[in-house]
Amino acid sequence: MKYKLSEIASFLNREFTGEDIEIRGCNTLMDAREDEISFLANLKYATYLSSTRAGAVILSPEYSDKVSRAIISDNPYLDFAKVVSLFAKEQGEFKGISELSYIDPTAKIEAGVTIYPFVYIGPRAYIGKNSKIFSGTYIGEDVHIGNECILYPNVTVMGGCSIGNRVILHPGVVIGADGFGFAQADTKREKFPQIGKVVIEDDVEVGANTTIDRAALGETKIGKGTKIDNQVQIGHNVQVGDNCVIVAQVGIAGSTKIGNNVILAGQVGVGGHLNIADNVIVGGKSGIAKDIKRPGIYSGIPVMDHSTFLKMSTTLPKLPEMRKEIVRLKKEIEDLKNQIKNK
Amino acid sequence: MKYKLSEIASFLNREFTGEDIEIRGCNTLMDAREDEISFLANLKYATYLSSTRAGAVILSPEYSDKVSRAIISDNPYLDFAKVVSLFAKEQGEFKGISELSYIDPTAKIEAGVTIYPFVYIGPRAYIGKNSKIFSGTYIGEDVHIGNECILYPNVTVMGGCSIGNRVILHPGVVIGADGFGFAQADTKREKFPQIGKVVIEDDVEVGANTTIDRAALGETKIGKGTKIDNQVQIGHNVQVGDNCVIVAQVGIAGSTKIGNNVILAGQVGVGGHLNIADNVIVGGKSGIAKDIKRPGIYSGIPVMDHSTFLKMSTTLPKLPEMRKEIVRLKKEIEDLKNQIKNK
Amino acid sequence: MKYKLSEIASFLNREFTGEDIEIRGCNTLMDAREDEISFLANLKYATYLSSTRAGAVILSPEYSDKVSRAIISDNPYLDFAKVVSLFAKEQGEFKGISELSYIDPTAKIEAGVTIYPFVYIGPRAYIGKNSKIFSGTYIGEDVHIGNECILYPNVTVMGGCSIGNRVILHPGVVIGADGFGFAQADTKREKFPQIGKVVIEDDVEVGANTTIDRAALGETKIGKGTKIDNQVQIGHNVQVGDNCVIVAQVGIAGSTKIGNNVILAGQVGVGGHLNIADNVIVGGKSGIAKDIKRPGIYSGIPVMDHSTFLKMSTTLPKLPEMRKEIVRLKKEIEDLKNQIKNK
Repeated sequence: MKYKLSEIASFLNREFTGEDIEIRGCNTLMDAREDEISFLANLKYATYLSSTRAGAVILSPEYSDKVSRAIISDNPYLDFAKVVSLFAKEQGEFKGISELSYIDPTAKIEAGVTIYPFVYIGPRAYIGKNSKIFSGTYIGEDVHIGNECILYPNVTVMGGCSIGNRVILHPGVVIGADGFGFAQADTKREKFPQIGKVVIEDDVEVGANTTIDRAALGETKIGKGTKIDNQVQIGHNVQVGDNCVIVAQVGIAGSTKIGNNVILAGQVGVGGHLNIADNVIVGGKSGIAKDIKRPGIYSGIPVMDHSTFLKMSTTLPKLPEMRKEIVRLKKEIEDLKNQIKNK
Repeated sequence: MKYKLSEIASFLNREFTGEDIEIRGCNTLMDAREDEISFLANLKYATYLSSTRAGAVILSPEYSDKVSRAIISDNPYLDFAKVVSLFAKEQGEFKGISELSYIDPTAKIEAGVTIYPFVYIGPRAYIGKNSKIFSGTYIGEDVHIGNECILYPNVTVMGGCSIGNRVILHPGVVIGADGFGFAQADTKREKFPQIGKVVIEDDVEVGANTTIDRAALGETKIGKGTKIDNQVQIGHNVQVGDNCVIVAQVGIAGSTKIGNNVILAGQVGVGGHLNIADNVIVGGKSGIAKDIKRPGIYSGIPVMDHSTFLKMSTTLPKLPEMRKEIVRLKKEIEDLKNQIKNK
Repeated sequence: MKYKLSEIASFLNREFTGEDIEIRGCNTLMDAREDEISFLANLKYATYLSSTRAGAVILSPEYSDKVSRAIISDNPYLDFAKVVSLFAKEQGEFKGISELSYIDPTAKIEAGVTIYPFVYIGPRAYIGKNSKIFSGTYIGEDVHIGNECILYPNVTVMGGCSIGNRVILHPGVVIGADGFGFAQADTKREKFPQIGKVVIEDDVEVGANTTIDRAALGETKIGKGTKIDNQVQIGHNVQVGDNCVIVAQVGIAGSTKIGNNVILAGQVGVGGHLNIADNVIVGGKSGIAKDIKRPGIYSGIPVMDHSTFLKMSTTLPKLPEMRKEIVRLKKEIEDLKNQIKNK
């Protein structure tokens, strides 16, 4: 693949400077070759502008004179992402519907669908047009998969779940396994049958080996445009809003409701039956045990204001010294008391 | 499916009040329709009794006059779970043994077993009667699976492991992968071959993408009736007792022994070679680095008494202010000393 | 399998004491039978030497007179690991290349390779000699797998990734799923296509359900001899050095660089774009938010010196009492001030 710099600029609807060379790839400022295009978004990499061999750089106007060929942009990262998509090759070259798969005769497969070998598609399942199902994937009865979806290898979608359009499920994702619910009987725990389902709206991406449990009753829901990283656990009846970002290894316990545009950083844990407001951001490894009612940045176990957390964190290693100091002060006060008494 | 209210009451061996209507489903107080039955277990939902459209409600005697039709129970949650099981439909409709699977001729498959397409069953494996094996599941050589088990899609059970009766393995579960053991040689780590196995007793449930490693020598064991949630990691030679509850994303390091009726909340980490007593409850995200010898509730990293943890937690954000206060007090004491000296 | 004690000693290049009996297995001091060999490495088990029924024990010279038959070693654990490997049986008995798999005609399969049923091998993939691919595994286009590798069931290796020699990928491992990268557009997040790959060097072992994401641009790399446990998450463009040990449920965010011989204990979280020096050891459940520039042992959220962490940890439960003490001291100082004023 190759594009002229002018073609790329025109695709982005941006101006370019310098000679109109041919571009054959995308790379970082540090690694780009002469026929590759790069970008400057994080300004700490600005020092690389003088040494980069990149054929052209997407950058903001104030840096345009630092390189011989540039595309001028007010959002270089987004524009670079778009250029990368020009050069990106889709995963997987298999075409058509493999005869090595099992497709129930009552399933409905729309036009343009790709089905790799060793896929199981159950009764009354629906696969929307141009969707692509890789090997080892299981699609249970009455599952609905929208248009232009990608289900990578070894994905499991249990019966009755519903997936919107342009959804990406990375390898090993499990949608609709039973929620974790038991009722205490005399001497043992009785399974609470999980008869609800999972609904995933349009444009959601779900990372490798993430698990999203079916509801006990009703629905577990992931709102449109939400992006979920690898190894995230989402419990039964959780409601995640639109356009959220849920980073790797986060766990969200049952029946919790997450607002829109919420960002949960890696390894965060959210307790069950909680409400998290819109636009909340939670720092990595935090633990949430109560509702969060106002937008803001939070961190800690349990969470507090992020600015408080930062101060608390720098104080924490001084805790033993503080304790000793308190003992010393106590002693000094005793001494003072005695001195006063004896005066 | 439909049942008369009287049939449900009789199935539960409970009394009912009001008209004997037909019930066609189960739901929450908030979402139930007129032909659905609901329940009141968590009393914070009692306010919904006046507004629910549910045809009948399972509740404790003191609330029986709040609704027009009720089933009176001293354990509404357990009774509701039983009613849900009346309406629950099993996952998966495939019947028989698929010719698209590979079953070693020396494997023994009992009557009533279901084997989906694309299952591998190795030499001398045993599958007990009425067990159900979904697509993409691998069962190694000499594996024993008891009666009435369900192995959902893409499960892996490595060679020699043993699974009891009525065990449920959710999608992506891995039983019997090698434990993580290496011996330090001069310049590299030499693998310690993991020649033990995993034994899972009756009535255990294991959540999606959970991993339970085979022992280095001997057995890793999960006791009967224990319920394990998604993405839990259980190291080699761990012994988990009976009727435990292990919530999502918990990790238990090698050779640790967990007693009976232990509850570990989400994301707890337990160090290796430890002993945890019976009836211990550990709060979410806690870290256990030492033995726990007495029943009780524990939380924190590292764990302390839960009540202490709660007080500690509310104090934590005040730590920077405490530090400043100590500096102020120190200064005041200096001042006092000087005043006394100068008097 | 059976070996004479003299054969085992000679295999280890060590001396033995006592009668030259036949050994038929390996076990712990506690569980060994009369025809099994055991070992003493962790000295807290030395008390078992008097009661063990083991036929022989591998131990260091100073304990040689405690048992009737011994192999004398200055590294009993390593030597025992070697003896276990004599008795260990490889997982899986399937031989040859199953006709129930799908192998693209352009893939190259070297001599001695085992391919189980229901494996997908994509265009131009390369499988080195004697490698073994279990059921349900997906190998994408242009993937390179070296010699003597084992890919256990339900592994996914996405297109273009490269795996060295003698690499073990345990069940459910996902190599080369997309990294988690999005650019903010006006109202939604635009996917940053992940066009890089994953490179895994020789002698790496990757635990069950671990995920290693492909780079956005360039490579995510795991250095030779590094051992990774179950359910570890490694983000895009991470560089892990040689001979590291990464314990279960660790998460490493994108673009972070981990040195050589680094040990990360269970559930550690490492932020993105960080540098961790060689020979760093990090305690379980710790959180790393800044570069670590010097070798040493670190713990805590965020990490501090491990010795400081230990003192801090024992002080933590006393925090509420400390706070009360500060209030008391403040009051006493007020009293003293008044007394002095009134004198």
